[in-house]
Amino acid sequence: MRMNGADALVGTLLAGGIDTCFANPGTSEMHLVAALDRTSSVRCVLGLFEGVVTGMADGYARMADKPAATLLHLGPGLGNGIANLHNARKARTPMVNIVGEHAAYHRGFDAPLTSDIEGLARPVSHWVETSRSAQALGTDTARAIHEAHGVPGKIATLIVPADAAWGEGGAIGQLAPSRKPPAPDMAAIAKAAELLRNGRGVALMIGGAALREPGLGLAARIAAQTGARLLGPTSGARARVGAGVPMVERVPYPILRAREVLADIRTLVLVGVDEPVAFFAYPGQPSKPLPQDSAVHCAASVEEDALAALAMLAELLGADKASPVLQPAAEPASPSGELDLEKLAASVATLLPEDTILVDESITSSFVLLPRLRAAKAHDFLQLTGGAIGIGLPLATGAAVGAPGRKVVCLQADGSGMYTPQALWTQAREKLDVVTVVLANRAYATLRGEFKSVGIDNPGPNALTMLDLANPELRWADMARSMGVEACRVTTAEAFAAAFEAAGRQTGPFLIEAMI
Amino acid sequence: MRMNGADALVGTLLAGGIDTCFANPGTSEMHLVAALDRTSSVRCVLGLFEGVVTGMADGYARMADKPAATLLHLGPGLGNGIANLHNARKARTPMVNIVGEHAAYHRGFDAPLTSDIEGLARPVSHWVETSRSAQALGTDTARAIHEAHGVPGKIATLIVPADAAWGEGGAIGQLAPSRKPPAPDMAAIAKAAELLRNGRGVALMIGGAALREPGLGLAARIAAQTGARLLGPTSGARARVGAGVPMVERVPYPILRAREVLADIRTLVLVGVDEPVAFFAYPGQPSKPLPQDSAVHCAASVEEDALAALAMLAELLGADKASPVLQPAAEPASPSGELDLEKLAASVATLLPEDTILVDESITSSFVLLPRLRAAKAHDFLQLTGGAIGIGLPLATGAAVGAPGRKVVCLQADGSGMYTPQALWTQAREKLDVVTVVLANRAYATLRGEFKSVGIDNPGPNALTMLDLANPELRWADMARSMGVEACRVTTAEAFAAAFEAAGRQTGPFLIEAMI
Repeated sequence: MRMNGADALVGTLLAGGIDTCFANPGTSEMHLVAALDRTSSVRCVLGLFEGVVTGMADGYARMADKPAATLLHLGPGLGNGIANLHNARKARTPMVNIVGEHAAYHRGFDAPLTSDIEGLARPVSHWVETSRSAQALGTDTARAIHEAHGVPGKIATLIVPADAAWGEGGAIGQLAPSRKPPAPDMAAIAKAAELLRNGRGVALMIGGAALREPGLGLAARIAAQTGARLLGPTSGARARVGAGVPMVERVPYPILRAREVLADIRTLVLVGVDEPVAFFAYPGQPSKPLPQDSAVHCAASVEEDALAALAMLAELLGADKASPVLQPAAEPASPSGELDLEKLAASVATLLPEDTILVDESITSSFVLLPRLRAAKAHDFLQLTGGAIGIGLPLATGAAVGAPGRKVVCLQADGSGMYTPQALWTQAREKLDVVTVVLANRAYATLRGEFKSVGIDNPGPNALTMLDLANPELRWADMARSMGVEACRVTTAEAFAAAFEAAGRQTGPFLIEAMI
Repeated sequence: MRMNGADALVGTLLAGGIDTCFANPGTSEMHLVAALDRTSSVRCVLGLFEGVVTGMADGYARMADKPAATLLHLGPGLGNGIANLHNARKARTPMVNIVGEHAAYHRGFDAPLTSDIEGLARPVSHWVETSRSAQALGTDTARAIHEAHGVPGKIATLIVPADAAWGEGGAIGQLAPSRKPPAPDMAAIAKAAELLRNGRGVALMIGGAALREPGLGLAARIAAQTGARLLGPTSGARARVGAGVPMVERVPYPILRAREVLADIRTLVLVGVDEPVAFFAYPGQPSKPLPQDSAVHCAASVEEDALAALAMLAELLGADKASPVLQPAAEPASPSGELDLEKLAASVATLLPEDTILVDESITSSFVLLPRLRAAKAHDFLQLTGGAIGIGLPLATGAAVGAPGRKVVCLQADGSGMYTPQALWTQAREKLDVVTVVLANRAYATLRGEFKSVGIDNPGPNALTMLDLANPELRWADMARSMGVEACRVTTAEAFAAAFEAAGRQTGPFLIEAMI
């Protein structure tokens, strides 16, 4: 069959198992759109803004355990997607970005949309290439898929000049055999076993795939067997959490809290995770929260096979029969009166449906919410990994696409939510089963706290201008409805519980604006 | 007075005449926020998303004729602002971006928000530098201001590590003398005069500052004196347009139309503008719409003094007394019945208040709107210059900040408007006098046309997915109200005219959702 470059690209995506494309194309991608239109095997999901597109692709991959493609319009389209690409990179999410570009011969004329796309892509991609021709496009796509499937997952960005897409002579690219993570170093494992067996003040810290089964159970049994504390990172891409699930202590976000929590650690054994570092630097505070005299031993790096490492450790330590510490279930609660975060947390902990996908971008509210939500029914827990706010709504949307039939609940801070509200429209269009809880505190509450930490107790007009969101008041329920999502605003604990329960029972998107 | 780096930065901005800061700061910029809070001389304007921030800074500078500062949070904050920085760069808008960064000693730890900020900044900046210390920060800020004031305007991006902001020993930077544009080459001017005087099929094409007075009048008199056609670029950063204003033929956006319009040109004389190029490449179409056998002569490049060039040309050609062709006024119209673009155009042409700032991101609707709006009362006309959609609402918002007391009208396509709707919130917060007309055609109508041009007349489900915005319907009036902006939806010509007239009479933001 004769095909153009665009057909070869689409055919290679399908051959590589990529059947979902989050898209916001423009004129320079029309031949790619036409090729996607010639097949019904790729599901195309439109986002009204590219930050939504890349955030959806991240959420999809975290749940589907395989990459999606994105389709983006030149440098500015990629630019709009950068913040959530940054987050995806930090989450080690696999992703194949297809970015349109002017025809090669047109670039030199500096048309209005000409920009340095490779330059923009590099800081948020592990692999970037501009395809040279229609003939090369299939092979280049196969390479991008292979790179995305790195260990851990990688961001691969393929830039497609319009003439490579429309040119004839395309051919499906040959896919390289899939990569296996390198086995961990036996000596490093043996050393880790010795440290865990003999050490006082020892903790085992896990990340990546080890935050889910089967790694999580292995790690928890090792901890139970040795008496080591079991730690996890402040933020993880995806973790299993909830009643009956092994408990993992997360390193707290505030540097002072993190230092307190880690103060008694003498030895930290890492599996599939990096040593904790402070989110930000502060005058007089160290960049690393671990005590200076503690030792760090890496049993398996993030590039190695964490599950194999944990299995070996469990065997060396005879941990197979140990009983891990499991999270107890929440006491059922029916809070009443004016809504606040504690009451909201108690309701969600009580009412969260079994096996929900819980997406968290609650920011400051998380300090109250997350400890309580650990006791909800077992669920998958997706977090902001790169600190670039505006991921919650897109991540939840993409997770719903990646895990059909499962309920998604998104805990969304109001300030962060305003970065990518357009995701609500895609939820309505695709009839996705997402309940969004907007935590409407009407402030950049993080900054209020940080402002105190720089010594200003009574902010003046300019500081208030930059942290207060109350003037004018955002009305999230109205905004959701303007994009086709059913919504309500609640001010009491009873109304929140009723709305959350009802939203849990129905299928399809719903937004609850919780005034806290 | 002892000051830290942040104080030195703010003091240097003020010394350099920059008294407006469009901001969306985060934790790493808290010391800069504190310094801004210690002065009341800088007006801080919050945007709820950085694409709004950079677009506002563009609109401000186009009207205030001087740069604003932006304050952005690390790589992702800059990333969110990239699309509108791209547009500002293409508009040759002066801008000073202040981008926060981790403390220098913290960078190596690869904290979640660590990214290659310089790498992200370079494709959209003419000048990028990371400050080394509190002591250097004042000098670095002075350099950024100097670079922004280049000829034409430049995007200067100064990256400020948190420890440079909080460190002591800051000092106000010394500002270099302001730059003058180089005078145009006399021989090039003489040659241009000869071509204009003798040529058949000659056109004079102007851009930049020459699209406003006094350049516009000079160019129009030269054209009147010599019989040359007077052309302007497809998009200009700011132009004077309307009844009684010299007429300038703009090069049409569609390549086929541009080729037709330029078909009889044998000689094109450029002043302060580049030769026209096609927005996109298409199979079988050239990248340049000018006839292949035409000659192009640059009398003054965009880096040279276009006004001086036009003055010299006018003198050489004895054009001082020539009568330029002026735009006739619109025939007053009172359309009725179901609203469509023609009726909307007729109403706006009749009702646009004198000396309005008209911001255009009407995209496909512009083909109908703009020819008719040229006959409205004289106004300043601001366009999308870089093709990155999502500029209209922020540009209008910033223009209102930059030109207090003047009415701003924004013609906003619905698809593009969804990129940066958060600008409406800033309009409400700052009580800005902006009337937004949303042209609600519920489609990426551009793509519908482009899709035909790639040979698909009957798009299938995947193509429709990527160009149809009707499912679900966006309700812009509700969305505006959710962000504190008064709004209405209109479906008839009478209702549109009544709403537009009423909005013109009141002060403050108003949005009209025009169903077309």
